Amino acid sequence: MPDGIPQADEGWTVAGRRFRSRLVVGTGRYKDLEETARAIEASGAEMVTVAVRRVNLSDSSAPMLQDYVPPDRYTYLPNTAGCHTAQDAVRTLRLAREAGGWNLVKLEVLGPPPFLYPDMRATLEAAEALIKDGFEVMVYCADDPVAAKRLEEMGCVAIMPLGAPIGSGMGVVNPYMIKAIKAQAKVPVLVDAGIGTASDAALAMELGCDAVLLNSAIAHASDPVRMAVAMKHAVIAGREAFLAGRMNRDYRADASSPTAGLIR
Amino acid sequence: MPDGIPQADEGWTVAGRRFRSRLVVGTGRYKDLEETARAIEASGAEMVTVAVRRVNLSDSSAPMLQDYVPPDRYTYLPNTAGCHTAQDAVRTLRLAREAGGWNLVKLEVLGPPPFLYPDMRATLEAAEALIKDGFEVMVYCADDPVAAKRLEEMGCVAIMPLGAPIGSGMGVVNPYMIKAIKAQAKVPVLVDAGIGTASDAALAMELGCDAVLLNSAIAHASDPVRMAVAMKHAVIAGREAFLAGRMNRDYRADASSPTAGLIR
Amino acid sequence: MPDGIPQADEGWTVAGRRFRSRLVVGTGRYKDLEETARAIEASGAEMVTVAVRRVNLSDSSAPMLQDYVPPDRYTYLPNTAGCHTAQDAVRTLRLAREAGGWNLVKLEVLGPPPFLYPDMRATLEAAEALIKDGFEVMVYCADDPVAAKRLEEMGCVAIMPLGAPIGSGMGVVNPYMIKAIKAQAKVPVLVDAGIGTASDAALAMELGCDAVLLNSAIAHASDPVRMAVAMKHAVIAGREAFLAGRMNRDYRADASSPTAGLIR
Amino acid sequence: MPDGIPQADEGWTVAGRRFRSRLVVGTGRYKDLEETARAIEASGAEMVTVAVRRVNLSDSSAPMLQDYVPPDRYTYLPNTAGCHTAQDAVRTLRLAREAGGWNLVKLEVLGPPPFLYPDMRATLEAAEALIKDGFEVMVYCADDPVAAKRLEEMGCVAIMPLGAPIGSGMGVVNPYMIKAIKAQAKVPVLVDAGIGTASDAALAMELGCDAVLLNSAIAHASDPVRMAVAMKHAVIAGREAFLAGRMNRDYRADASSPTAGLIR
Repeated sequence: MPDGIPQADEGWTVAGRRFRSRLVVGTGRYKDLEETARAIEASGAEMVTVAVRRVNLSDSSAPMLQDYVPPDRYTYLPNTAGCHTAQDAVRTLRLAREAGGWNLVKLEVLGPPPFLYPDMRATLEAAEALIKDGFEVMVYCADDPVAAKRLEEMGCVAIMPLGAPIGSGMGVVNPYMIKAIKAQAKVPVLVDAGIGTASDAALAMELGCDAVLLNSAIAHASDPVRMAVAMKHAVIAGREAFLAGRMNRDYRADASSPTAGLIR
Repeated sequence: MPDGIPQADEGWTVAGRRFRSRLVVGTGRYKDLEETARAIEASGAEMVTVAVRRVNLSDSSAPMLQDYVPPDRYTYLPNTAGCHTAQDAVRTLRLAREAGGWNLVKLEVLGPPPFLYPDMRATLEAAEALIKDGFEVMVYCADDPVAAKRLEEMGCVAIMPLGAPIGSGMGVVNPYMIKAIKAQAKVPVLVDAGIGTASDAALAMELGCDAVLLNSAIAHASDPVRMAVAMKHAVIAGREAFLAGRMNRDYRADASSPTAGLIR
Repeated sequence: MPDGIPQADEGWTVAGRRFRSRLVVGTGRYKDLEETARAIEASGAEMVTVAVRRVNLSDSSAPMLQDYVPPDRYTYLPNTAGCHTAQDAVRTLRLAREAGGWNLVKLEVLGPPPFLYPDMRATLEAAEALIKDGFEVMVYCADDPVAAKRLEEMGCVAIMPLGAPIGSGMGVVNPYMIKAIKAQAKVPVLVDAGIGTASDAALAMELGCDAVLLNSAIAHASDPVRMAVAMKHAVIAGREAFLAGRMNRDYRADASSPTAGLIR
Repeated sequence: MPDGIPQADEGWTVAGRRFRSRLVVGTGRYKDLEETARAIEASGAEMVTVAVRRVNLSDSSAPMLQDYVPPDRYTYLPNTAGCHTAQDAVRTLRLAREAGGWNLVKLEVLGPPPFLYPDMRATLEAAEALIKDGFEVMVYCADDPVAAKRLEEMGCVAIMPLGAPIGSGMGVVNPYMIKAIKAQAKVPVLVDAGIGTASDAALAMELGCDAVLLNSAIAHASDPVRMAVAMKHAVIAGREAFLAGRMNRDYRADASSPTAGLIR
């Protein structure tokens, strides 16, 4: 019955690169690099994001991420975690490019604690400088459709609004704005940050997003490898549900539909 | 790294029968029996519920469900859809047992339209009669922990509270009561009814339920086979997330956690 | 501009008695009877519910509720808090009637801890016995539209579904079922239990309910008298909003409406 | 019992002006100026915001707002509705100041339709120019705690994050970020936009906000004057509930508390 089998999801493309997995995962907050490697493998992710100011990528006398998460197998996406100014973020990614040749990057510039919320003014400034400098910028941003559109028009290759602040595990608090951002975007939209568990990731995908980026949800689970498995399935579930077109909601149930003769 | 691979979920057991799939699906509301068959196969379900008053199970001069959904491959769970009194429900299942030998059954007795909500008084009455009569009763019920406990003590083999009324697609409206029912139950608990999309099914499983039963979410999707695939993954995702133990929620994000030197 | 002033809300009627205030409050859980009195006065309530098994209504050698909350000013509504069987509930209210002449009563029969959830089977049984015995029964019940209708048909004078379990402060968890219960009812519907703060009470009224019954939300606030003031206004706010007819929700905001020349 | 009566709420202060009412209302979207006047009076508001580009404030040959909403009784807060650039907003408010002497203003600069969402870059730019020019700026902004802090540090006299986009009636979609903005602010915080009904306004106040600004919720209700009454009470209810300190939420209800001997 070939017509009964849905076409396999062909994945998504960012900056000319195609990925089958719609899950992008972080590499930090794990117990050790072995756990990092096992969880990432279990997640099925093909792209991993790396905090270049926090992870050892170059000192071969100490354990290096590359020994556990091979760069020939995973697309490395260097990020600017820990940067609180545009200048810092730009400098960090230039150093990363010099060291590893990475051109596709994740920009995040956060405001001051305690809320790990993006500083959108600094983010716009850094995005402009990085794009001018030839980087392909995937950008972490507020769930603000006006700023998201500006980042896209500036040349960012992916827009990555938060579901909730980094590390909060609150889920997708404002699904309306994620939908608004997706509705107007011509580049991929990823929910980045806030995902706490599998149903959050599925919901993000049901909103029509191209992919989900998460870290703490896996790394801070009691069993990170198992949660990685959960997230792998959650993202597929959400994508397939989006493509399938969900039933209508109606709390009066089948009040108005004919039921006679129907099988339930 | 064998210790890094989570033990495969071993599935769940009801009335002495083991199932690997934690998804139970209905057989009605589809365009035709071919679509029914394709969607059920795609869902990975091993148990299917059948409205014995609405589906042709015995007239071999017309298309029969068994020709499309083979009973030697799927566990048939006859249900009492369309019954509005205890007497009707009991009679319906007795006839089904005589016809097909089915002993494991799903009891549902609904109140009057428009709300396809269980009539709990009639449900309790019917459950009592059916159990006395030797049936193994999986019971659709309100999200009422007192009635759920009573049904269990009476001998029901599975408790199946609604997430929302049948056919409403509203999701799990009251997760607290589903958790309450699960917390006190010694028999399997399934969310039955209300599931509208993949994230709803994942959430039901994250609450600790043993399985999910749904029909309209698949049959009324624009592409039922694709939604069946979504649900298959959603239930796995939710179960694995439950077993993995989710991170804590904290909207202040990492305010209080040390960040110096951490990889993010 | 007399046509500009909305008609004052005329209140609601139960068992032939008219009340202007749509707030009914409990009399327990306070620090002492003085605080009870002050909070009730501040709430503007005209009807108070009294746990006859827990409060001193007859031993004049000890502080009596009547000395603080005068029965000639407030309608006393004896309730069956602490009763876990129909027999207990019926006996309790008979004793109350003998002692105080109270005929209008609140029936609640709870299941076992930890969930202070109504035992609907026992509630139905007790309601039947009490009505036969001439009581006017306002009944605490699950948010179950089938049971609610049955209680009304049996002769209960008010249907009082929970917003959430007693003492939980979770608010109105399932607004759909409260609306469903109200939509079909010909007697007053009150949300009873679950209210945690003012917006919960306003929401309950916006669903179309006739009144709200609460206790812990006031008694367990840091400043009970102040919360009583809050609740007084919340119930008016919610009722007026219901009568006013709210604007439509549309997350795309004014996308489709003409804006040229409009004052905003 | 004077100690039993809570201190009356003393209101809030912005730019040195004290207001007892914590409700600020718009003057547009009504059927006519008579309805505008009646609704505003019913709301109890003391401050009204006026779209200077849309309402007639100067042509005395046509009906003028001032004839219906007397400026000696209400504080006029000119706003920049309809402005989509910083330049436009600044020019509009300069003209308003010349015409009416208004120095306390509401700045809003929106992005393009269909989402009437603030353009935060333009808002920051306009705020800077206006403050330099001597205006006292109350600023409509995204629910972005980093931008909100920047606006405060720049000298804005009140921070007014959206609950949801203008005219959407979606309520306070992200209460976490409103709380975050309030937690760090030393100037008044008002929820501005998104309020759809009374419980939304109460919730905004329960989050600790100083006041609420709304327009469509009243003007687009079926009975605007009645909804104005609702909002008046809702804001008081929410404020009093905030000051009272709400009970804890616990879905297990009184599971762990001693109940023996307690009055309920």
